[in-house]
Amino acid sequence: MIRVGIVGATGYGGVELIRLLSQHPNAVINRLYSSSAEGAALASFFPHLQQQSLPNLQAIDAERIACDNDVVFLATPAGVSAELTPALLKSNVKVIDLSGDLRLDSPEKYQLWYKKQPADQETLQHAVYALPEWNRERVAGAQIVSNPGCYPTATLLGLLPLAKTGWVQPHSWIIDGKSGVSGAGRGVSLGNHFSEVNESFAAYKVGIHQHTPEIEQVLTQAAGVETIVQFTPHLVPMTRGILITAYGQLQQQVSAQELQELYLAAYADEPFVRIRELGSHPRTKEVYGSNYCDIAVHLDDRTGRVIILSVIDNLVKGAAGQAVQNMNIICGCEETLGLPKIPLFP
Amino acid sequence: MIRVGIVGATGYGGVELIRLLSQHPNAVINRLYSSSAEGAALASFFPHLQQQSLPNLQAIDAERIACDNDVVFLATPAGVSAELTPALLKSNVKVIDLSGDLRLDSPEKYQLWYKKQPADQETLQHAVYALPEWNRERVAGAQIVSNPGCYPTATLLGLLPLAKTGWVQPHSWIIDGKSGVSGAGRGVSLGNHFSEVNESFAAYKVGIHQHTPEIEQVLTQAAGVETIVQFTPHLVPMTRGILITAYGQLQQQVSAQELQELYLAAYADEPFVRIRELGSHPRTKEVYGSNYCDIAVHLDDRTGRVIILSVIDNLVKGAAGQAVQNMNIICGCEETLGLPKIPLFP
Amino acid sequence: MIRVGIVGATGYGGVELIRLLSQHPNAVINRLYSSSAEGAALASFFPHLQQQSLPNLQAIDAERIACDNDVVFLATPAGVSAELTPALLKSNVKVIDLSGDLRLDSPEKYQLWYKKQPADQETLQHAVYALPEWNRERVAGAQIVSNPGCYPTATLLGLLPLAKTGWVQPHSWIIDGKSGVSGAGRGVSLGNHFSEVNESFAAYKVGIHQHTPEIEQVLTQAAGVETIVQFTPHLVPMTRGILITAYGQLQQQVSAQELQELYLAAYADEPFVRIRELGSHPRTKEVYGSNYCDIAVHLDDRTGRVIILSVIDNLVKGAAGQAVQNMNIICGCEETLGLPKIPLFP
Amino acid sequence: MIRVGIVGATGYGGVELIRLLSQHPNAVINRLYSSSAEGAALASFFPHLQQQSLPNLQAIDAERIACDNDVVFLATPAGVSAELTPALLKSNVKVIDLSGDLRLDSPEKYQLWYKKQPADQETLQHAVYALPEWNRERVAGAQIVSNPGCYPTATLLGLLPLAKTGWVQPHSWIIDGKSGVSGAGRGVSLGNHFSEVNESFAAYKVGIHQHTPEIEQVLTQAAGVETIVQFTPHLVPMTRGILITAYGQLQQQVSAQELQELYLAAYADEPFVRIRELGSHPRTKEVYGSNYCDIAVHLDDRTGRVIILSVIDNLVKGAAGQAVQNMNIICGCEETLGLPKIPLFP
Repeated sequence: MIRVGIVGATGYGGVELIRLLSQHPNAVINRLYSSSAEGAALASFFPHLQQQSLPNLQAIDAERIACDNDVVFLATPAGVSAELTPALLKSNVKVIDLSGDLRLDSPEKYQLWYKKQPADQETLQHAVYALPEWNRERVAGAQIVSNPGCYPTATLLGLLPLAKTGWVQPHSWIIDGKSGVSGAGRGVSLGNHFSEVNESFAAYKVGIHQHTPEIEQVLTQAAGVETIVQFTPHLVPMTRGILITAYGQLQQQVSAQELQELYLAAYADEPFVRIRELGSHPRTKEVYGSNYCDIAVHLDDRTGRVIILSVIDNLVKGAAGQAVQNMNIICGCEETLGLPKIPLFP
Repeated sequence: MIRVGIVGATGYGGVELIRLLSQHPNAVINRLYSSSAEGAALASFFPHLQQQSLPNLQAIDAERIACDNDVVFLATPAGVSAELTPALLKSNVKVIDLSGDLRLDSPEKYQLWYKKQPADQETLQHAVYALPEWNRERVAGAQIVSNPGCYPTATLLGLLPLAKTGWVQPHSWIIDGKSGVSGAGRGVSLGNHFSEVNESFAAYKVGIHQHTPEIEQVLTQAAGVETIVQFTPHLVPMTRGILITAYGQLQQQVSAQELQELYLAAYADEPFVRIRELGSHPRTKEVYGSNYCDIAVHLDDRTGRVIILSVIDNLVKGAAGQAVQNMNIICGCEETLGLPKIPLFP
Repeated sequence: MIRVGIVGATGYGGVELIRLLSQHPNAVINRLYSSSAEGAALASFFPHLQQQSLPNLQAIDAERIACDNDVVFLATPAGVSAELTPALLKSNVKVIDLSGDLRLDSPEKYQLWYKKQPADQETLQHAVYALPEWNRERVAGAQIVSNPGCYPTATLLGLLPLAKTGWVQPHSWIIDGKSGVSGAGRGVSLGNHFSEVNESFAAYKVGIHQHTPEIEQVLTQAAGVETIVQFTPHLVPMTRGILITAYGQLQQQVSAQELQELYLAAYADEPFVRIRELGSHPRTKEVYGSNYCDIAVHLDDRTGRVIILSVIDNLVKGAAGQAVQNMNIICGCEETLGLPKIPLFP
Repeated sequence: MIRVGIVGATGYGGVELIRLLSQHPNAVINRLYSSSAEGAALASFFPHLQQQSLPNLQAIDAERIACDNDVVFLATPAGVSAELTPALLKSNVKVIDLSGDLRLDSPEKYQLWYKKQPADQETLQHAVYALPEWNRERVAGAQIVSNPGCYPTATLLGLLPLAKTGWVQPHSWIIDGKSGVSGAGRGVSLGNHFSEVNESFAAYKVGIHQHTPEIEQVLTQAAGVETIVQFTPHLVPMTRGILITAYGQLQQQVSAQELQELYLAAYADEPFVRIRELGSHPRTKEVYGSNYCDIAVHLDDRTGRVIILSVIDNLVKGAAGQAVQNMNIICGCEETLGLPKIPLFP
């Protein structure tokens, strides 16, 4: 059995990891860590976890984390894993970081977009960006991997096949993202007050969201030419789910059927990506609670644009589910092991 | 492997059965039946089921149902199973009926509350009311069981321990129920139009809901005296979840601690009932997607009333989950097999 | 023009007063007071108020409040008006208190249920409980009135006609209340975090909610015998609206038609109470944004109980709207002046 | 008093007209027409309208409509007013058409995008496209006006100032629209079933929505060069509200401050358009129930794009409110008369 530790167990990413790992046949939830509440039971924060046999919360201590676990998930706010991972790297523990700290190759860009101190260069060089459908081979051999952001996961799975072709002008991408409120975590603020969010819709962080350079970094690698994207996130009055509506200007003639076949071929063997019917409209509810990314391709002949719709559950494929998928790869398990097969509907 | 058939696969009860059974280690989804859409793929109704290897829909034919399956679930509207089950009873197939057709012992009461033709007497006599925590022994040996209604499940699990004691006046029970919209099924109507239901709250069927006699029948059996309840259902602007707030007038002195201990003892060995802290307030979200029923006990010294709060997911413990639990019992499997251990939160 | 001041202008009660008073033909919003943010524009807290010509926020100062306004609304948390009103009483300003501080005649009960220091006896004696449909004559001559709580407004309008008859056992009332989230105000907490409240339903403060003695006080006065109620509030995943489901045991024979006529007669001349069809189910959405209280009467012959359904918008008839109605009475205006005639639907 | 008739009174547009007109000091709701339910009271469809003194529903008869009213609103599905208006044009009644039938100058485009028979050429030539901020002079003298669509209203108010400058490449506009569910009307379908829409988000009609040519027609007129837009609507799990996120590629250097000043100047005298702070994020809730359009301007220096955020209440400024505004213009009233000044918040 894989002995698993979770740092940041009192957040939404943490409890979603617990939901998934508690069903995993090859893993055991071995240790839970929290920067506060040492010694407390997690069920005192989350009554829905009552009667689960879970370890009590422990203080975060790099040495003990490294010693007591085979794999540790860092489900922590920006800034924490930059500090914690150098010590973990000296041990044999495998690290799966769900924060944004280790996603950007460039410390300068991290500082610019995250407004925080970047991790040291050595840690960054060890950390493998772990989007399995893009580079599972590199994930397999890594000691430390950086789990992609929620918006980048939906976006990159939606755009990578096209990015590789060169059919779309690399600076034309406009990515209009929409997310449920759980993406902002469990901390309280006027921004997630029910009476303010319910029956309302708004954009936020136009032009300055920290997932922008992450998307650009991977698309640039895939396309082989510098790719700049316009990314706008929006807050949807719902708890879970992300939809990405991405617009790209075609720079060569291509038919809808060719586009559809490109996507079908790209994901033919992927267990967690479903290419939906050409011209269809996937709903976030259709992947709820699951590790799927559902993608639909549209070609607008009138405008010469391709429009990609891509949906995920932000807490599963956009966070904890993809992290478990990465654990499976790192530990040599079947990649789908322990992950729910069918979304919760309705 | 248990070969499972599902009649009424295009409804919410049906797809929830599919979600749960697809994860069940000892069962295989063998046949899907629908009164319409013969030959169609279920994914054409439910895109979230794309890429699941499910059989196409077949017409409902009692002989073939009996022949092709070990267990059949009837997730059909009132009236269907009353017609279908007599033929199934002549075969060896085990039948788990999720409709209300076979729940009431009295055909007269069925006719009065359901306004439909009751099942024949012989079928009714064979059908075992299958609330496992109440009578799993009888379920174990039955060929045909009647899965309890959603409101009755939450109510009876909440009230049965008290009903057996005689501490509460049997005619004093007031059961104020609140349910998410999925309980009304997938059929479209102004009553489940988003713009009418969202940001609104209302009661419905005050004094005339067909789950009333079902609750009374079981409480009367448990108490040994005739029990009449006041039951009022309400529609909550959410998809899943039921909360029951039940009020009973104590007819003898009892302390809060005694009440709590009564419940703790009654459910000490039950895997799907969690007695929450004395005086706490369980939320429907805390059982979302799971087969749990969470119960909290309150004593109001000022009024001499006991107040029981009981929450379930109406589609899981209130329908498909309990049906799978019953299948496990009937088939001699571990009762918790294939059922999710942890609710989806948030 | 009536010069109006609002204390506590940065809360939901405050902005709802501003919405209503800005349309009032005889009133002008003259001063806005806040315990914090002196000098700031209210639009900096509430962008929806941009381009309204509103005075900037001032510090709370009893002398200046009394001096600068004809009427002052106190939309403040419990405890504030108990301190502020004695000074205001010495002036000529009319005071409409929306908090719970002056609603209970008994300082002991206030202390017991609110866990705060009560107002002094003299202030309490001056304050008139201002439910216009119950005692508008006393409101008319008062200098200081106490605006009823949201749950009590819906409950009392629903039960007062019956309470006066003596048809119902006075200790049998069970009041199951359901409220939208805005009732809890704009302060942030896990209890109103969107991801925790959305798609969830729960009771709170079972047996201990501070609106209980307020309901009992008025029902006791109306019935002429001591009346004890069981009151349970619940939180609905919506922003506005309250539904009360009230159960009373009849102690004498009465027909549904007699009940209906009792209600029709009691409210025949009331502009803001609508008696709905016998046996119907009013929805909170049907009074959204309006000052209406809609009431439906049910008689359950089987159980001998009367069930009253009563809906209001908690921020209008349950707070700001009723306060404006009281201002109209106190100032000798037409009682409906400035209040919206038709709910916002859907 | 202006005698007003409403055709299509049983829809959401119709009842919103009633809400607004019932508060209008110079108008009286004189006649209500419906294609079904002749003779019925509107309150039988909409209990929230109980106790309003409204005329009963009448059959739609062009002659009587023309005879009995000064102004008639057509709040009807596509296709109805194309048939009805020719007869009305022969009388003196003023016609305000809320449907899409008369918005497009080109009958060919109507047929292409609406898949219906267009109105005759003469009717189309008489009908003035009535976006007051764009062309209130032409509205003032018209007998028949075509009220803009909901998405076009938010889009055009957001883009017209820029379109006139020529700063943005006219083929670069990408308009990502998000709407609440009430925009789809009161007819029931799986697409507005609560359990399907709640806690979900999706795009619809990508590339083929009938509001596309309406937007292009006006932008082309404003810019003086042919303008093609990419328009994608999305369904938000809320009842009311539209947000438009519009992206334009700048073809000349311009500063954020210049952009902001352009907008401030363009709308300096407009009572219903509020230019929000540069770089801010208006929420749909901030215009709820009001006739405002709130607009925020963003410049992304990194990408050379301007991003416009524009919010309205789809049933008010996007339908009934704008129609009343147009009535005010046509009838020579103050343009803001009878329209609510402050949004409903929260």
